[in-house]
Amino acid sequence: MTTLRLLKTAACALFLSALQPFSPSAFSSAPPPKITPTWTEVAPGVWKAVIGTPDDYTLLGAAGNFAPLKDALAAMPAAKFPLHRDEIIGRLVNGKTTLRFPLGNREDIYGLGVEFSSVHRNGQIFQLHVDHYSQKQNISGRTHAPVPFYISDKGYGVFINAARYLNVNVGVSVRLDSKNKPEPVDRNPVVPEKTKWSSMPRSDSIEFLVPAAGAEVYVFAGPTPMDAVRRYNLFCGGGALPPKWGLGFMSRMPAKTTADEALAEVRRFREKGFPLDMLGLEPGWHSASYPCTFEWNKDRFPEPEKFLAELEKLNASANLWFNPYVSPRSTELHGKLLPYAADHLVWNGIVPDYTMPEARKIFSDHITKNVIRSHPAGLGGFKIDEVDGYDRYLWADVTIFPSGRDAEQLRQTYGLLMQKMVYDIYRGLNRRTFGQVRGSNGGASPLGFGIYNDNYNYNDYITAVGNASFAGVLWSPEVRGSKGLDQLRRIQAVCWSPLALLNGWNSTAKLWDSEQYAADVRDAIVLRMRLLPYWYASFAQYRYEGTPVIRPMQLLGGMKLAVTTETGKLDDTENPYELGKVSEVRDQYMVGDNILVAPISASVKERKVILPPGKWYDFYTGKYVGANETITVTPPPSQIPLFVRDGGIVPMVPERHWAPGPDEMLPLEVRHYGAAPGSYAVYDDDGVTFDHERGDFSWTTLEVKRDAKGKLTGRVIPDKSGNKWRYSTVTWVFMTK
Amino acid sequence: MTTLRLLKTAACALFLSALQPFSPSAFSSAPPPKITPTWTEVAPGVWKAVIGTPDDYTLLGAAGNFAPLKDALAAMPAAKFPLHRDEIIGRLVNGKTTLRFPLGNREDIYGLGVEFSSVHRNGQIFQLHVDHYSQKQNISGRTHAPVPFYISDKGYGVFINAARYLNVNVGVSVRLDSKNKPEPVDRNPVVPEKTKWSSMPRSDSIEFLVPAAGAEVYVFAGPTPMDAVRRYNLFCGGGALPPKWGLGFMSRMPAKTTADEALAEVRRFREKGFPLDMLGLEPGWHSASYPCTFEWNKDRFPEPEKFLAELEKLNASANLWFNPYVSPRSTELHGKLLPYAADHLVWNGIVPDYTMPEARKIFSDHITKNVIRSHPAGLGGFKIDEVDGYDRYLWADVTIFPSGRDAEQLRQTYGLLMQKMVYDIYRGLNRRTFGQVRGSNGGASPLGFGIYNDNYNYNDYITAVGNASFAGVLWSPEVRGSKGLDQLRRIQAVCWSPLALLNGWNSTAKLWDSEQYAADVRDAIVLRMRLLPYWYASFAQYRYEGTPVIRPMQLLGGMKLAVTTETGKLDDTENPYELGKVSEVRDQYMVGDNILVAPISASVKERKVILPPGKWYDFYTGKYVGANETITVTPPPSQIPLFVRDGGIVPMVPERHWAPGPDEMLPLEVRHYGAAPGSYAVYDDDGVTFDHERGDFSWTTLEVKRDAKGKLTGRVIPDKSGNKWRYSTVTWVFMTK
Repeated sequence: MTTLRLLKTAACALFLSALQPFSPSAFSSAPPPKITPTWTEVAPGVWKAVIGTPDDYTLLGAAGNFAPLKDALAAMPAAKFPLHRDEIIGRLVNGKTTLRFPLGNREDIYGLGVEFSSVHRNGQIFQLHVDHYSQKQNISGRTHAPVPFYISDKGYGVFINAARYLNVNVGVSVRLDSKNKPEPVDRNPVVPEKTKWSSMPRSDSIEFLVPAAGAEVYVFAGPTPMDAVRRYNLFCGGGALPPKWGLGFMSRMPAKTTADEALAEVRRFREKGFPLDMLGLEPGWHSASYPCTFEWNKDRFPEPEKFLAELEKLNASANLWFNPYVSPRSTELHGKLLPYAADHLVWNGIVPDYTMPEARKIFSDHITKNVIRSHPAGLGGFKIDEVDGYDRYLWADVTIFPSGRDAEQLRQTYGLLMQKMVYDIYRGLNRRTFGQVRGSNGGASPLGFGIYNDNYNYNDYITAVGNASFAGVLWSPEVRGSKGLDQLRRIQAVCWSPLALLNGWNSTAKLWDSEQYAADVRDAIVLRMRLLPYWYASFAQYRYEGTPVIRPMQLLGGMKLAVTTETGKLDDTENPYELGKVSEVRDQYMVGDNILVAPISASVKERKVILPPGKWYDFYTGKYVGANETITVTPPPSQIPLFVRDGGIVPMVPERHWAPGPDEMLPLEVRHYGAAPGSYAVYDDDGVTFDHERGDFSWTTLEVKRDAKGKLTGRVIPDKSGNKWRYSTVTWVFMTK
Repeated sequence: MTTLRLLKTAACALFLSALQPFSPSAFSSAPPPKITPTWTEVAPGVWKAVIGTPDDYTLLGAAGNFAPLKDALAAMPAAKFPLHRDEIIGRLVNGKTTLRFPLGNREDIYGLGVEFSSVHRNGQIFQLHVDHYSQKQNISGRTHAPVPFYISDKGYGVFINAARYLNVNVGVSVRLDSKNKPEPVDRNPVVPEKTKWSSMPRSDSIEFLVPAAGAEVYVFAGPTPMDAVRRYNLFCGGGALPPKWGLGFMSRMPAKTTADEALAEVRRFREKGFPLDMLGLEPGWHSASYPCTFEWNKDRFPEPEKFLAELEKLNASANLWFNPYVSPRSTELHGKLLPYAADHLVWNGIVPDYTMPEARKIFSDHITKNVIRSHPAGLGGFKIDEVDGYDRYLWADVTIFPSGRDAEQLRQTYGLLMQKMVYDIYRGLNRRTFGQVRGSNGGASPLGFGIYNDNYNYNDYITAVGNASFAGVLWSPEVRGSKGLDQLRRIQAVCWSPLALLNGWNSTAKLWDSEQYAADVRDAIVLRMRLLPYWYASFAQYRYEGTPVIRPMQLLGGMKLAVTTETGKLDDTENPYELGKVSEVRDQYMVGDNILVAPISASVKERKVILPPGKWYDFYTGKYVGANETITVTPPPSQIPLFVRDGGIVPMVPERHWAPGPDEMLPLEVRHYGAAPGSYAVYDDDGVTFDHERGDFSWTTLEVKRDAKGKLTGRVIPDKSGNKWRYSTVTWVFMTK
């Protein structure tokens, strides 16, 4: 292959090097002007501004345009616009929109979606992009719910209502005209400089690039960070209120399970005394799957209605897996949806354009008629898979959708659209649903779906439990084929998350497998069932007041949670930019008002727990453990570390293995911790329907005071409306002696 | 913190669930039409098409709009348009452009920039985005030179001349109207299906999303993949031809080195007999750095001209580090460039808009007058750092540049702009330069800069050496603070890359540190120096014929290089999509026509080497090693595995420690390997200036034939033009006995 020398005499090859290879300027004249937006208070403590001409298709629109809960917002503390209006700047540049918000020198930012590796956002850059999360692909912002909503520890929030891939810089990239520019520092001074050189000088801005000709922006007042989150959730329509059975336990079956095997599994749960409310069926219930037919598989489920009726008799309901890509093997659905299909496929199935009402109607009618049929009580919900990513599975960004919306817009909202359709299907049946989804986004607060993924890293999963609450979504650290202590520790953690489940889609692992730990696994699930009144009240707070059920420490107030950055050590191959290691609190959170949860993984025997201000008590014993300090705990395998605040009241029911029916009355055990008086409002309704929207619900107050002799005494204060709760006797247990 | 029950009576909260939350369609009528572009042959075997209205600012423009080498293109085999024109489709969709190219069922794709983890592109998705590469952030397409040019093993190439973040799907995301759609497969069949379910069904397309209102596209004919690369390089203006000293060894000093320390280091190289041509000075030569002043540091370099003159006397020249961000501490440059600065800073320095001719002139004049001064021979070039990424260091995508070009466009081309400015500065002095750069892109072929980064993974680095040749750029696997055998193996590898260097910017490691390996380190560098005629001829092939110096196996032809994909094993936590492991050949390559290089890392003692068709011989001994087979070698530490093809001729000079001057005459040793006759053209010119563009160069042919008695005999055939080479005596060495 000796190359011929073809060009020995090509001596006069010219290197033309033009000085002006392109027109010198793209702006017709000056750069585009800075726009100081006009803010309108659209709900109490919620302001909206419009810069340029935003897309008509938005996140809130895709989520279903729920009406803001204005009464609840009005009941919050009065609030002024929380920022200096002239420090918020928009600009329309070459068809895109830039947004600048101020960032104070000591201000900490949280939110921007369900990330898995960190909570604190300062010094980070994101491209918010619905995708699966994996440790192997950790571009910040690629996640299952990249909600463009951030919260400041100064007590306000900002939401960009754009269904686009948004670039966000939080305190990174200093502006030339900033009044707070850091001084330049010589990294290699002859005489040492006063300031150490930093590879990331702090900027005084949070900046967004919205790839659209305008943007719709909301600012939420506080006064606290929690209040900002509450206003966001209330503005989105309030938080999700699951049916009571949604707070029970879910077990998902292997993909090819038959009706008989499924029913046998439920009976096994009942025999062994393991709680179960939801039985998850994976792809094999479809006549063909990946892509899906959305038709019952006749071999595995020859009599779907009988199967669902049987489940109902066993006090359980099915949750059916699907991904939204419709198989040409379906009898009808594919043909009906084909006119509304995108021009690219997913797993060889069509991708319906569910921004189009016609397509939504076809799908909803089909599911109602052909899948749920006449048994909504035996089929409580769905698991909506693969609406997140990753890029190699989903439609390419070149895909054309018949509505004319961009592939990017559909990618950012497909999970929202699917959730809303499923929600509406059940709403049409006057039944609440609770399920799973793998992709979500802004505006999802009222939609009852737990997000999940395949990452399975314990610490990442716990981080996401908390981060979800900054984003108006629910995250479930689902348990898969773990064994022994790992299974136990994961079950304990998932029972302290919004949705408690074992996902056995490809595993033969059972909860009762471990001789050593099966009883502890059962105890963890039973404890969740016993706490049903507490969980339900916490979700009601989410529904009516916007307060997240899971409350990350950063939302609690009362303490400055240190984000510590070690000084980085320069190394020419390992750390050329002298980056420091960041530590932050992302492994503990409150569930509801009173219980502090500190999950512990099987890989460690002890862990640190930060106790917020006030006295704290061990959940199991009622003993005092500390106040406003960091303690180290070494919990036995049987216990996930749980702590209750002073005066904390925890309502519980006796052990049971499925949720109570609408007319069932249960005895109540009311625990009180510590020495302080306290009160707690127990919410109740039928637990199944939307009748609570018509007033059919009650808040019953449990109050503990010291009597004249100084003895703690409890009393029950019924709802003023006269509406009753569904509890019979009340037993008071004062845990702290 | 017992929450007040504010809303117990808010019974009538409304959930308004609009059926049409947004206008049903964004297209005014039908979807945008498919455009079959018109192709014009703009150079022999090179076709151009324009879809819509592309940006006026392009990659080729930013690289300097070099004139295509049309004579060299005309000398290549005649070629027809290599694709079916009607299978290439463009579409203008909502202000963006989609492009679809066909992908055959058995077609393999390479290119799309300097990636580090793979060579083969099928089944991958990229967002081409100039950035640093790190294993921690491996979104495909984020790399130092994300060149939008791909090569098919069917023998053609495609280039998108757009300075934008381009999304590319290679054989991923099947189109609904494809005639080659894979059949849907049930992943969970009751009766097994014929085909195994795949998480990534193969598509028959390569698709681009160009976020601009049009695109300029080029198709390059073959007939071979190597020919397609050659046409690309020739169309871009031909490959870079370094000065001879650029092919010597570079050693970079710690950041705070003084003039005296620098000169002492050069003398140490001379005393110890280690070759050295370039001495790299890191940030400390600036009066302040990060951001940079572009002024000599008066404490460390009180007399720059004397320092440079002294270097020149020692037969070495300096290479000065900078990043392009200008410090307010500079005397003049900051003020002069401020009117052309972007509205965001990098490390508190301004970011000049070098798309503007005025800014380019200010910078070029300053460097020429204040930095190079009157000593271009003592200051041969620059290292252009941090024009790549990562996002947290560079300007945000919201940045506004005074030319009106987008931050995205500047990000994609800043490395190109800087290279071209430095190239032009030296061209103005009629001296070639050779340096380093951390970010590049399409059109860079004529610019002589080796790309580098901080990743430092041995296998990644070797992959990039080869991948760079698919992209018209040069990659150097630079050695940093390694020791012992690791240093030796890395030095051996870097000496078989375009730019041989030790980067001691923050290391005290010296090449002569190891008692055990110092002699081998020296030998590796001496071998590179002895091969100067071979390296220079190989670069001349790049310059005049477009043939890359480094030739990855996939470009060689003659063999189908297996990309093997193991069948993935389903696992519910580790591998839920049953992905298989991909193996490909990315650890060996040809350098020039005759030498096969198989770098070996310090972590292994043996490795496999694929020998292409024909007989192959050991470089060191001339012994036969095999033909068209895979062998295993266990090289001693002193040897990097090197093999020469049958009939291969390798011209060498005696040991020397710096490049020869323009008028220096050297004796030539010509090695011949194997039994076959052969010929090899040795290129020569003054090694320093651009005078070769005016014909001042020669190609002298070394020919080995068997004489009448069957004995191998060599002869020298001078250049027909009468131009002489700079070699005195010729000694023939027949290596294979």
